Amino acid sequence: MAQIHTHSTTYLINGGFDHTISPFDRGFAYGDGIFRTFVMRDGLPENWLLHYQKLVADCAVINIVCPSAELLMSDLQQLFLPDEVAVAKIIVTRGEGNRGYTLPAITAPTRVVTKSVMPQYPEERFAEGVNLTVCETKLALQPKLAGVKHLNRLENVLARMEWHDPAIADGILLDTDDHVIECTAANIFSRFGDKLLTPSLHQCGVAGVTRQRILELAHTFSLRVSVESFNLEKLFVADEVMICNSIYGAWQVKNIQQKTWSIGDLAGNIRVALKA
Amino acid sequence: MAQIHTHSTTYLINGGFDHTISPFDRGFAYGDGIFRTFVMRDGLPENWLLHYQKLVADCAVINIVCPSAELLMSDLQQLFLPDEVAVAKIIVTRGEGNRGYTLPAITAPTRVVTKSVMPQYPEERFAEGVNLTVCETKLALQPKLAGVKHLNRLENVLARMEWHDPAIADGILLDTDDHVIECTAANIFSRFGDKLLTPSLHQCGVAGVTRQRILELAHTFSLRVSVESFNLEKLFVADEVMICNSIYGAWQVKNIQQKTWSIGDLAGNIRVALKA
Repeated sequence: MAQIHTHSTTYLINGGFDHTISPFDRGFAYGDGIFRTFVMRDGLPENWLLHYQKLVADCAVINIVCPSAELLMSDLQQLFLPDEVAVAKIIVTRGEGNRGYTLPAITAPTRVVTKSVMPQYPEERFAEGVNLTVCETKLALQPKLAGVKHLNRLENVLARMEWHDPAIADGILLDTDDHVIECTAANIFSRFGDKLLTPSLHQCGVAGVTRQRILELAHTFSLRVSVESFNLEKLFVADEVMICNSIYGAWQVKNIQQKTWSIGDLAGNIRVALKA
Repeated sequence: MAQIHTHSTTYLINGGFDHTISPFDRGFAYGDGIFRTFVMRDGLPENWLLHYQKLVADCAVINIVCPSAELLMSDLQQLFLPDEVAVAKIIVTRGEGNRGYTLPAITAPTRVVTKSVMPQYPEERFAEGVNLTVCETKLALQPKLAGVKHLNRLENVLARMEWHDPAIADGILLDTDDHVIECTAANIFSRFGDKLLTPSLHQCGVAGVTRQRILELAHTFSLRVSVESFNLEKLFVADEVMICNSIYGAWQVKNIQQKTWSIGDLAGNIRVALKA
């Protein structure tokens, strides 16, 4: 197995630099797999324990045996240089099968680790906050897959196609019942007084690791957390709104359609706490 | 480009036997693509015009530029021998992109053609009909993707995992409103007197080419067709039930859970008409 450490190397498949993905891989054929995205810094994955736990949990939902943490960590250390900051993505699929939905008698999961450049976000997104749009594409209600970061992401793709204005950082996704769920690549929080609200993800949406971390650290800011369903009208009367993911941490929302908020300190405080 | 004609060759990627799929292909990353499955016989695709039209239409829904019919036909003729009967699958994805949902400025679709053996179905499925189960997994309502044969097929995968009994040919998928929609790998029809009913697929489901052909040829059996929403209770009081796809044509349904039907001739007649 090749042990090439170069900047041009961008992925590893089943631990090998020279392996390929078959069109018979069920990840390709059906989106039959799970993924995670996180930052690699100083040769280490940020919040690895939570990301690995979530990968295992998501694999379990669709009955894929997740590769061991040791194997994935070894892949990451082969692919990422000790001194670089970059974005890692782990994809685990059910592996190759014959044509048709029937599961093969024996499946060997395919594991892929990719490396991408760390995005250079405009500094004002951290300093002043971001603008969001509201997507016309709505999330369908599928409780069997809700919360899971699986490879069936056409809804996110269609939603992301709706805007081209670089001043818009992300788009809010409502479900088909018009509840606020998330953004195309972020979870969302809103503050009402000392209450921090985030949407329930029991019908659809992706429950991210940063969302989980924020729910756990909110009490250090004397915020009570609540996971519940709410609509856009309610979001618009929040004191502050914030979006989050594992790459940028948290951004304050300053504008959604006609609604604007003055600069708040929620996202800045949360970012500091996430880094601690 | 290699021009190898052997039985072991099972796929062609972008017209080449030696090409591979990148983990950055959006078909793999997000299920961002479309597919079709049909029979190759005597070196020709069965019902090619309808399959190609549907591929173009489905690509248009998610804004992928479909490869030309000439290119795909050339792929098929490279991959399939003139004297074999086998199953072809065409997959068209949006192509490679960077990490993230944002569409690349320029996309070159990836086209894949695979060859699989023709399934050897038990003869009794044609002679006597088939047993169906009713899946617990329900189809979410997503009008933006309804009818389209896209690569986000986790619902079908989960549904197909629900039974292992080889005596069950397929499973009925209901939507989350409990309407009968289809089977995991088939469309479904029911006959009430001279009326042939098939579910409306405006909220979910895949509108297959064989379903379309049956809707068009039903009048030759003096059947009026109707596309509408109905539930399992209504299906159970049908005079006859039939499932269909592009591989086996049509099968009479003899049993669903506690409900059994005596042998009817609907599927047999339709099969003959489909072959004409």
